[in-house]
Amino acid sequence: MADLSQPNPAALISMMGDRARAAARTIAGVPTEGKTRALVAVATALREATAPILAANHADMERARAAGLSRAMLDRLKLDEARVAGMGAGVEAVARLSDPVGSVIDQATRPNGMVLSRARIPIGVIGIIYESRPNVTADAAALCVMAGNAAILRGGSEAVESNRAIHRALVAGLEEAGLPRDAVQLVPTTDRAAVGAMLKAEGVIDMIVPRGGKSLVARVQAEARVPVLSHLDGINHVFVHASADPAMAEKLVVNAKMRRTGICGAMETLLIDQAYPAAGALIRALGESGCELRGDDRARAIGPSLGAATAEDWDTEYLEAIASVGIVDGLEGALRHIEEHSSGHTDAIVATDQAVAERFLAAVDSAIVMWNASTQFADGGEFGLGAEIGIATGRLHARGPVALEGLTTYKWIVRGTGQVRP
Amino acid sequence: MADLSQPNPAALISMMGDRARAAARTIAGVPTEGKTRALVAVATALREATAPILAANHADMERARAAGLSRAMLDRLKLDEARVAGMGAGVEAVARLSDPVGSVIDQATRPNGMVLSRARIPIGVIGIIYESRPNVTADAAALCVMAGNAAILRGGSEAVESNRAIHRALVAGLEEAGLPRDAVQLVPTTDRAAVGAMLKAEGVIDMIVPRGGKSLVARVQAEARVPVLSHLDGINHVFVHASADPAMAEKLVVNAKMRRTGICGAMETLLIDQAYPAAGALIRALGESGCELRGDDRARAIGPSLGAATAEDWDTEYLEAIASVGIVDGLEGALRHIEEHSSGHTDAIVATDQAVAERFLAAVDSAIVMWNASTQFADGGEFGLGAEIGIATGRLHARGPVALEGLTTYKWIVRGTGQVRP
Repeated sequence: MADLSQPNPAALISMMGDRARAAARTIAGVPTEGKTRALVAVATALREATAPILAANHADMERARAAGLSRAMLDRLKLDEARVAGMGAGVEAVARLSDPVGSVIDQATRPNGMVLSRARIPIGVIGIIYESRPNVTADAAALCVMAGNAAILRGGSEAVESNRAIHRALVAGLEEAGLPRDAVQLVPTTDRAAVGAMLKAEGVIDMIVPRGGKSLVARVQAEARVPVLSHLDGINHVFVHASADPAMAEKLVVNAKMRRTGICGAMETLLIDQAYPAAGALIRALGESGCELRGDDRARAIGPSLGAATAEDWDTEYLEAIASVGIVDGLEGALRHIEEHSSGHTDAIVATDQAVAERFLAAVDSAIVMWNASTQFADGGEFGLGAEIGIATGRLHARGPVALEGLTTYKWIVRGTGQVRP
Repeated sequence: MADLSQPNPAALISMMGDRARAAARTIAGVPTEGKTRALVAVATALREATAPILAANHADMERARAAGLSRAMLDRLKLDEARVAGMGAGVEAVARLSDPVGSVIDQATRPNGMVLSRARIPIGVIGIIYESRPNVTADAAALCVMAGNAAILRGGSEAVESNRAIHRALVAGLEEAGLPRDAVQLVPTTDRAAVGAMLKAEGVIDMIVPRGGKSLVARVQAEARVPVLSHLDGINHVFVHASADPAMAEKLVVNAKMRRTGICGAMETLLIDQAYPAAGALIRALGESGCELRGDDRARAIGPSLGAATAEDWDTEYLEAIASVGIVDGLEGALRHIEEHSSGHTDAIVATDQAVAERFLAAVDSAIVMWNASTQFADGGEFGLGAEIGIATGRLHARGPVALEGLTTYKWIVRGTGQVRP
């Protein structure tokens, strides 16, 4: 039965969307220094609100513990002084990024004298749907605002108090700098139907960014009518070619898998060229780093301690200290395996043979392809973007780490002197 | 009842999609000269097939006449020697365009020595859904192939024989040049369910481009799960500011409306600043050019012969010699009207005051904004793109005239020397 004290979700999102659209039109015209000033004010407001934010987070944590949430979820939900300070620092880092709005992508003068240019403009209204990490509230809002967009944020119900406290600080900072408070709105209900209404709000929300686990992204992709910038699995491969330097291969493979196993840029499958002479040492080094290994028959013949990989293993994003290991026949074998099993996130080759490496970089159709570098670099910060709203694994609009530029689009500007078309 | 002699539409599109994917992987790696050679061979094959194409078109025309199709539809369907020659010339023009594939968008060296670049790559498999014009078969295929994509084409049922004859010539040309025939496939059935199957073929088709009237685009947008590059109405405005040069204003307004009234770049609404001193002459000139005018009260006070515009007129794409005329209060009045009624295609200002013009160009949120130029220039050819697959009025991926670049995406390439992430 509908709760009649609440507007229905579609009406709620429509109302928030109208306010967001008006705010977006204002913020689209705010010069860089206005946005920078606002984000610095937001960072200050966040720091000053440390006590109420931590109190709100304490209430969320109590509720989450009572509800029996997993330790991993509790860790994602938990804030402390350092994390609140980190949020403020993150917002300030975004404020220092170079503003894409207004930048000219290209320009040309036509034979009839018309001057054509394409200039970057904000997308408009961005919907962010996320889960238990409250810091996304500040991170995502800062990126949206710096790119001249309005944001509609829908966080996880377990973080509702934390998000409200953070949002209050965000709005205080925006208003202090003279920006419209509706530039960053938090969906006020934890009703899951509000997510559905956001996904169907065509013309109201211009782009949805889901930030969360597989089930969230799957729901968003299944239901969305609004375009989605989505981040799917990172089933990432490292292919060690016959020409690879063995010392470099060991170092890169262990780093790609084990530096942090829970991030989307972590290696999940190691492919070793059957002609690579140091396969035994490589498998041993990865195993000794603390990684459980599951191999195909040829890998297990080299490394007898390997478990047997099932068909499912090659399509699994472990996000743990587990890797599948396959022996492949040269570059072509690696390309075939990657074409079949890669999720299109990040795939790497280790090789000294430049021609082979360039063929790999050209042929592998993932958002990020790497030669002699660790897949753990797949990150907006590491790529010099300063931050990221996500790593897009789709094919349109933006791919790979997405920061400010991916939150803009462009328009064509024609400046004439009275030209008519003959 | 299902026709059991035919595969079901979803199975058909899935099978075509698998073939298209394999062809796309091949063609993505074909260097520019290979694609150019193939398109030149396609143009030759089209010309050599003039007789069978015209015979097939004759059969379509007979059927269409018997079915009582409108004169306008018959004209769109009809081919003659000049139109077939024009198709060949169009394909050759695409072959001469600069190839976006492999071009480097930007490049940077990170502090740790990794070299990052973003390089353009094909999107993959493009679905084109169109109506009665058979020339789209050749145009769209040429653009897709030159950008390294495979195309799945679904033309109108009234043009089925023409499209098959054109497609045979396309495939003959591709094969002669050693490109896979599956790079350009024509959906072999006129069953409308095949369109539905294309729209739902996520992961099989990477992008759908609808080319046709409102009802087609509306269906595609309502049903599509695959991303759509779509072209909506061109409800285009010309705003004549108080500072406009009267002679230029007359020339631009008449050209924007009357050069060709049926194209999407045609002006539909004329907005005149109430402070513009030559409004009477401007309205008279447009009326004398043969345009029916429908005005608001203030416009009718100036031009007594004007009909009364209804609320609906401001949101109508006439595509005929009809225009709505409104008097607005300065730039702000024009911006308010355009924000409410523009379809986001092309909007123009006529003004000598540069500051006002720049404010208009910045504030109007359409794919194309113009100052002192006719809206009829809204066209890929006129923009120097050589061709266009459509004019996108959405906000993501590509906006305005879309040619080769809009049929590509990019990947990040990282070239390292053994860097691991600390």
